[in-house]
Amino acid sequence: MQFGSDNIAPAHPAIMDAVARANEGDLPSYGTDQLTKRVQQRFSEVFERDVAVFFVPTGTAANALAISHFAGPGSLVLCHRAAHAYIDECGATEFFSGGAKMLPLAGESGKLTALAMNDGLGGLSDRMPARIVTLTQATECGAVYAVREVASLTEAARKRGLKVHMDGARFANAVAALGVSPADITWRAGVDVMSFGGAKNGCLGAEAVVFFDAPDADGFDDRRRRAGAVISKARFVSAQFSAYLADNLWLTLAAHANAMAKMLADGLERLPGARLWHRREANEIFVSLPQETEERLGLASHRWITPGDGANGRMLRFVCSWATTPAEVEAFLEAALRR
Amino acid sequence: MQFGSDNIAPAHPAIMDAVARANEGDLPSYGTDQLTKRVQQRFSEVFERDVAVFFVPTGTAANALAISHFAGPGSLVLCHRAAHAYIDECGATEFFSGGAKMLPLAGESGKLTALAMNDGLGGLSDRMPARIVTLTQATECGAVYAVREVASLTEAARKRGLKVHMDGARFANAVAALGVSPADITWRAGVDVMSFGGAKNGCLGAEAVVFFDAPDADGFDDRRRRAGAVISKARFVSAQFSAYLADNLWLTLAAHANAMAKMLADGLERLPGARLWHRREANEIFVSLPQETEERLGLASHRWITPGDGANGRMLRFVCSWATTPAEVEAFLEAALRR
Amino acid sequence: MQFGSDNIAPAHPAIMDAVARANEGDLPSYGTDQLTKRVQQRFSEVFERDVAVFFVPTGTAANALAISHFAGPGSLVLCHRAAHAYIDECGATEFFSGGAKMLPLAGESGKLTALAMNDGLGGLSDRMPARIVTLTQATECGAVYAVREVASLTEAARKRGLKVHMDGARFANAVAALGVSPADITWRAGVDVMSFGGAKNGCLGAEAVVFFDAPDADGFDDRRRRAGAVISKARFVSAQFSAYLADNLWLTLAAHANAMAKMLADGLERLPGARLWHRREANEIFVSLPQETEERLGLASHRWITPGDGANGRMLRFVCSWATTPAEVEAFLEAALRR
Amino acid sequence: MQFGSDNIAPAHPAIMDAVARANEGDLPSYGTDQLTKRVQQRFSEVFERDVAVFFVPTGTAANALAISHFAGPGSLVLCHRAAHAYIDECGATEFFSGGAKMLPLAGESGKLTALAMNDGLGGLSDRMPARIVTLTQATECGAVYAVREVASLTEAARKRGLKVHMDGARFANAVAALGVSPADITWRAGVDVMSFGGAKNGCLGAEAVVFFDAPDADGFDDRRRRAGAVISKARFVSAQFSAYLADNLWLTLAAHANAMAKMLADGLERLPGARLWHRREANEIFVSLPQETEERLGLASHRWITPGDGANGRMLRFVCSWATTPAEVEAFLEAALRR
Repeated sequence: MQFGSDNIAPAHPAIMDAVARANEGDLPSYGTDQLTKRVQQRFSEVFERDVAVFFVPTGTAANALAISHFAGPGSLVLCHRAAHAYIDECGATEFFSGGAKMLPLAGESGKLTALAMNDGLGGLSDRMPARIVTLTQATECGAVYAVREVASLTEAARKRGLKVHMDGARFANAVAALGVSPADITWRAGVDVMSFGGAKNGCLGAEAVVFFDAPDADGFDDRRRRAGAVISKARFVSAQFSAYLADNLWLTLAAHANAMAKMLADGLERLPGARLWHRREANEIFVSLPQETEERLGLASHRWITPGDGANGRMLRFVCSWATTPAEVEAFLEAALRR
Repeated sequence: MQFGSDNIAPAHPAIMDAVARANEGDLPSYGTDQLTKRVQQRFSEVFERDVAVFFVPTGTAANALAISHFAGPGSLVLCHRAAHAYIDECGATEFFSGGAKMLPLAGESGKLTALAMNDGLGGLSDRMPARIVTLTQATECGAVYAVREVASLTEAARKRGLKVHMDGARFANAVAALGVSPADITWRAGVDVMSFGGAKNGCLGAEAVVFFDAPDADGFDDRRRRAGAVISKARFVSAQFSAYLADNLWLTLAAHANAMAKMLADGLERLPGARLWHRREANEIFVSLPQETEERLGLASHRWITPGDGANGRMLRFVCSWATTPAEVEAFLEAALRR
Repeated sequence: MQFGSDNIAPAHPAIMDAVARANEGDLPSYGTDQLTKRVQQRFSEVFERDVAVFFVPTGTAANALAISHFAGPGSLVLCHRAAHAYIDECGATEFFSGGAKMLPLAGESGKLTALAMNDGLGGLSDRMPARIVTLTQATECGAVYAVREVASLTEAARKRGLKVHMDGARFANAVAALGVSPADITWRAGVDVMSFGGAKNGCLGAEAVVFFDAPDADGFDDRRRRAGAVISKARFVSAQFSAYLADNLWLTLAAHANAMAKMLADGLERLPGARLWHRREANEIFVSLPQETEERLGLASHRWITPGDGANGRMLRFVCSWATTPAEVEAFLEAALRR
Repeated sequence: MQFGSDNIAPAHPAIMDAVARANEGDLPSYGTDQLTKRVQQRFSEVFERDVAVFFVPTGTAANALAISHFAGPGSLVLCHRAAHAYIDECGATEFFSGGAKMLPLAGESGKLTALAMNDGLGGLSDRMPARIVTLTQATECGAVYAVREVASLTEAARKRGLKVHMDGARFANAVAALGVSPADITWRAGVDVMSFGGAKNGCLGAEAVVFFDAPDADGFDDRRRRAGAVISKARFVSAQFSAYLADNLWLTLAAHANAMAKMLADGLERLPGARLWHRREANEIFVSLPQETEERLGLASHRWITPGDGANGRMLRFVCSWATTPAEVEAFLEAALRR
């Protein structure tokens, strides 16, 4: 199970410590405390721009609230057909929007392209207004958009009057993999709003919606409140982000997870009969293994199906986290090789 | 313009007469009058089964109410990617359901198959409950499902616990084309609920939702009312259906429309450079013509785009109605041939 | 039953004739025909202002679409606690808005006042944004707002940033009773949008949403379409309104209904033991009668309950229509007196 | 500020410790871990019945999800007009339900009665189905329902086919005040589902929806997921509840908060010119003070308005928490007396 998800890892000690330290005395609730304000300011520093930041309880809430902020009933949301928001969130975006239509598009390794977007809109955009496109960074197939790929997509989106959302559940892994600044891969590349995830990378539970143009956030606070997504004791989320964003901890943790995934992928690839379905670029690996290997290692719970993956139900997913150790990877690979 | 749509035709005189005759004295409103009850009974005769019938103002209301009756927020609705309910109704089904997800599937000439349905559900059905599949008879590409095609689809649907909805905006044209009984092509073939359209085939405005298992209709009346879809002076809709269903008028009118479409399609097909995109089976024709012909005849408003049609924006739609005359068809074809 | 509702009456012959005359040749559908455009222009003449007009199938659709156009989820809609939109439309406004909250207010004879509005907002308006107030003209208690009453309410609404909607299911009866111009009692008195009803006053089924500031209507057409409320053969609705608004027919019919109601109310009031619960001002009468009289005349179906009416279940409603005759009124009153 | 809310207090050390202890090794996410399962079992012990428990991020999510599970669009939800779910949650219940109507009822000190409920349903229940009534324990006015008061209400609810929801944001304070078992004041008194709050009583952020009849919870997990309310690292919530429910910590903390509130209320009541608006029964106090006192102590942020409170904007709210100390109360009262 240790490669089942980055959600299964504990929180990083520095983050846990920050939570403990925040537990001192009375503090205003619902995000009006000074700690929360300082952390919001810290987001602006990280992104080199005055951003509007809203903490929310889960990644699904972040995606669905951010997207539905721009897409009401009767509008189109463009997404990859493997997008988490499309297949794994129980229709949250459609629900929060009161009935937007998500238009699923194809694309290599979970990536959207301007071409696929324009094709998809062909028969539809004169019948319903398309409002927003959501891309995932890193993608659901473990790939990472380059800056120019994001820019090319957002340029096409802008021409059609679309806003651009980035699902950054694994944003840290993408930034660490790319080695670019958070600003370069988001607003400077044309992204309007993002879901900034912490839970998969060392936090207890810390997710944020970040608007790169603050006026876009008008009305978002009410939207968040009526979704039951305003945390009363915000200090405990702020404390997590405070430690997470300090001293580049978030990128250090993500870089480690990526490195562990590289080590694991390199090993898996060398297994006889193994096939990698996507290039490993961040902390996820999609692979198929001989049935014997699968059964021997008890990997049934790793099985992973995405629409149109062509893997015929034979794909497995492995995820490394900040807490994965080289020894774990080695032990697993050794077990895999043994017979 | 005369082949632009079957919506542009006037109402049939017999139907208009019935409306005028219904305008006599006081009658209870909201469908509690005797005329309405008799017409509802007539539906049961036509379908050889005790059906539950609800009149609604439009075809969109019929589709969206019928589908959302079975599919709430967070559920999956399967449809062809060219389905009217998917691309032409401004997200009505998603809106009425409070956020169901419509899963668009591919298929020849607007037809769904069990295979496409099962493929489409592959990556999704364990993440969201799939509730219903909607097929259109005749399809948006002018094709007609054979009884065995419907039966094969509904059998696959039933195995997966799905209800089956038929969008019958042009049901009369399909029944006339098939030469089968209305029962054979609906509930006997496994259909649970349908949108039964009259407006495109000689009515002023008369649409109905028909449940083939009456208990399925529980709660539908409230659903219809809160959608603003309960017509107060129901007698004027009932009168239309009364004449429409009398003496097989509905099938006579549809058969005529189909015959006119056949005549037109045969002629179009013989035009130099013409290409039919789908076999003409009911009253719609999808064709591309040489640009010169198009321009000379002023056919820009006939342009028709459906997702994935492969026609590169060159497809035109022609529709014949109960009111189309052979002379109109001849005159048009003559003009097309002349240069 | 003849006083059960104005919905039970037939259509006026002039309106039925107009419908028959509209049944000539092909006409563009969905409201793009010339007849529809002319009738929309006629609305602008009637209201002495360039209005934006949208035909919809029912009064419930008119109310719910108009109100929800300004009030989304999480917003407040102010209304009288006896408002049709509040108690008789199965939650259509809440449904169409995706969850607006209707705040029910008290007030004499179905009338809202600035005072009641401000009181009602007391504990709530700093927690949720109040967007719109809806008043009914004539009210659900058969009363008619004077121009200054509407103006006083809309002034208070404007100060709080609220739009004002008028439910005009019986607007004709109110205008006829007041003897003012349609403009004076609507936009000149501060009303932003109204539901303009025809079905209760001689039409077969003709309802419209009228925006007095055309830019307010941005996006309304998509809203209407995804509600399944765009009638394909619009000509048949336009024809009704064409005749309805010609030569002041609408006001003539309403004035007759009001006169019949006056005659009936005067008679009822003289019955021993009768009590009128509201002044009769338009075409509705709310009265209680001795139990003996009620039973003898079989008036159980006239029973009428509104929240907080204080009538302890003893109130009856009588409605007169354009088709009510003096002879019917006389015969009823005679029967009531006889014992 | 120290009496501004029980939300401003830190978490209790025992609860913080439990969170730290849970941060050990990998654990399955989304609530499938053993700790979560043990804590769910613990709920069943606390309530002496096999309950179905779902953790959610906030009290608003708990209320809105629990209520909307039983009340869809077009249905009625009965509540007190001062209910948190009615006035303080930005329309979350209406939003989650897709447009249910909340019917606000009057009642002493925030308490609903069978009488008020039946009165409120008078004019409405034959027009819309009433599905559920929600009561708050302790109420928004700081009062506590006795067992027989809850039982009387739930009996009336049951007769009308309503489910009963209890908003238990301050359930611990109510149980501590009553000295009854949690079972006695909930399911044994007829409650079907509750929001069980921890955040106001020593947790960092821990809320749960508890169904007393497990089958009622069918479909709730999907509902929770599409609301973005499934916490991925559930262990950190489970750990909180684990400590909270151990050794009656929750009741000890609540009893302390109540005792502090009693001490404060007794002192406030003795201030010249003070008026208590409701009996102090749990940990909240509603009082008005002379303007001079208010200003001198800087109590503007304590101002509290509820619909129909009759306090003319002069009411202040004080809340004590598990962390309030006698010294704080004494110091405040001393400052209040001094002039």
